[in-house]
Amino acid sequence: MSQSGGSTAEGHIKGVLSNDLRSLSKTMTLVESSRPADRKLAEAVLTGLLPHAGKSIRVGISGPPGVGKSTLIEVLGTRLHAAGKQLAVLAVDPSSALRGGSILGDKSRMGKLCELPDVMVRPSPSGGSVGGVASRTRETILLCEAAGHDVVLVESIGVGQAEYAVAGMVDFFLLLVSPDGGDELQSIKRGILELADAVAVTKADSGTSGPAARLRESYRSALRLLHPAVPGWDPPALAISAHQDIGIEALWETVERHHALLRDSGGLDKRRTAQATTWMWRLVEEDLRVRSRSHPEVQQLEQQVAAQALTPIAAAQRVMKLLMNDDS
Amino acid sequence: MSQSGGSTAEGHIKGVLSNDLRSLSKTMTLVESSRPADRKLAEAVLTGLLPHAGKSIRVGISGPPGVGKSTLIEVLGTRLHAAGKQLAVLAVDPSSALRGGSILGDKSRMGKLCELPDVMVRPSPSGGSVGGVASRTRETILLCEAAGHDVVLVESIGVGQAEYAVAGMVDFFLLLVSPDGGDELQSIKRGILELADAVAVTKADSGTSGPAARLRESYRSALRLLHPAVPGWDPPALAISAHQDIGIEALWETVERHHALLRDSGGLDKRRTAQATTWMWRLVEEDLRVRSRSHPEVQQLEQQVAAQALTPIAAAQRVMKLLMNDDS
Repeated sequence: MSQSGGSTAEGHIKGVLSNDLRSLSKTMTLVESSRPADRKLAEAVLTGLLPHAGKSIRVGISGPPGVGKSTLIEVLGTRLHAAGKQLAVLAVDPSSALRGGSILGDKSRMGKLCELPDVMVRPSPSGGSVGGVASRTRETILLCEAAGHDVVLVESIGVGQAEYAVAGMVDFFLLLVSPDGGDELQSIKRGILELADAVAVTKADSGTSGPAARLRESYRSALRLLHPAVPGWDPPALAISAHQDIGIEALWETVERHHALLRDSGGLDKRRTAQATTWMWRLVEEDLRVRSRSHPEVQQLEQQVAAQALTPIAAAQRVMKLLMNDDS
Repeated sequence: MSQSGGSTAEGHIKGVLSNDLRSLSKTMTLVESSRPADRKLAEAVLTGLLPHAGKSIRVGISGPPGVGKSTLIEVLGTRLHAAGKQLAVLAVDPSSALRGGSILGDKSRMGKLCELPDVMVRPSPSGGSVGGVASRTRETILLCEAAGHDVVLVESIGVGQAEYAVAGMVDFFLLLVSPDGGDELQSIKRGILELADAVAVTKADSGTSGPAARLRESYRSALRLLHPAVPGWDPPALAISAHQDIGIEALWETVERHHALLRDSGGLDKRRTAQATTWMWRLVEEDLRVRSRSHPEVQQLEQQVAAQALTPIAAAQRVMKLLMNDDS
């Protein structure tokens, strides 16, 4: 799997900056590798490329399985490509850590996009923890930007932590909901709605009075109850149909309007800065938890807290001492 | 401030178990102290009392300033007292860390409750971080339970992290919203709605067709869009008026119904266990961040990440090495 043999950091940097999909793909494989030698090389490559990154619109697309994420990405992606945008499509799928790959090959899910020149479609990296998988996608965004891609779509696949992770790496977080399939598809995980910069009801083929329109009205009303995360931005509830090409243009205009607002207010830098430092601390915490698993005493303390035989504050102090090898 | 002089752990334990308000108050002061000697004694006292704790209904009451939290607590508390419940009212106010006390003395805000025998009203402890302030309230809940209080109301005061902290220490988290005052009072902080086991619209004096009724309908519709956190429990939207004693009985019935559901399904133990271990890790993380402030290198790494000159994954590895005094 390693692509480091024979390649130098300079070689990778040059390849990515030359905006050649094969070079970009090769460097992505390097960044996704967890071999220590590859990691070291990857860091040198990323450090060299960081000054060239940051210029894309990063859009996260999230929603339950079956809601129509890949269909939207195909239709929206084709439209963006036709408008002259250079597009990358990435994915975060924590379950790929177990399976070693995405549920369906992205090439078959997004056949049309994969055939277009200059479009980079990259499945979720596999291996490691949620933080590990998502960290690699985060770094892959930077590679795409350094290569010159101006729109990066990041799809969250599967259940669990993927949605939070994707929301933490994009400029615009789109939540898709569907009028089909009853409560499972209509109701959303707790904490996700409040991360959304917009909600789009999919499969809105039935005009202005069908179930999609009613669901849209419900989300519109719910979003009004929440404080806006971006001053001056009230997350809208849209209705789209990828099959019938309804609402797709309006959706993209919404993304661009939001991006302009963020950019002009200085909010874009603020958001990206906060995302990056939050991510750093999340990884530190994850590392700490992994380390704690090799401390039987930490496990015991956690069990005592769970059994309500020890208070969290007393346990936390002892955990710190154990993890820090601190004898004081 | 320290009450440890002359008191032994056994003395404190006996005093609390005797269900005497003055003894309970004295042990609360010990638990709130941050002096190392007091902390050590407090831990011994808490360890001795933990087997006697856990038997109350823990209710969190949250909402923006002016929504009517103390008015509700007075009316609800008086009613519970009349019904023979032994009540404790606690508060989490992170800003008390700065001011050294609550905004208004709780004795003046809740004059009637304070005059009732056997009711414990305790202001927010002061000093330390959000985690520190809230940790002490957490431990105070245990003291009240060991003393025999069967209902503990925990009010979140002020803005910021208090609401999340309170939600993380109670069995039932009630969110209050008000039809007054426009968007500031009506819209709620992101992430709070999804923690609520119920929403109550306050000041619902205007019957079934006024602004309170309309706001209640909006929350009812919004709550329907969220996955329930407790299987079988759909968080209701209620309308109450503490002044006119409207909906207060129905509110308490809701709390009791929720508690019975949790208890019978085993969900209560699960919730408390998860809260306690999550809390332990939150304190570990907070401790880590405090330690990192004395490492100028960690500060530099964080700044480089913020400036997008270093990736979070590379920075996190170096931060761990620095914090762990790890030379590998």
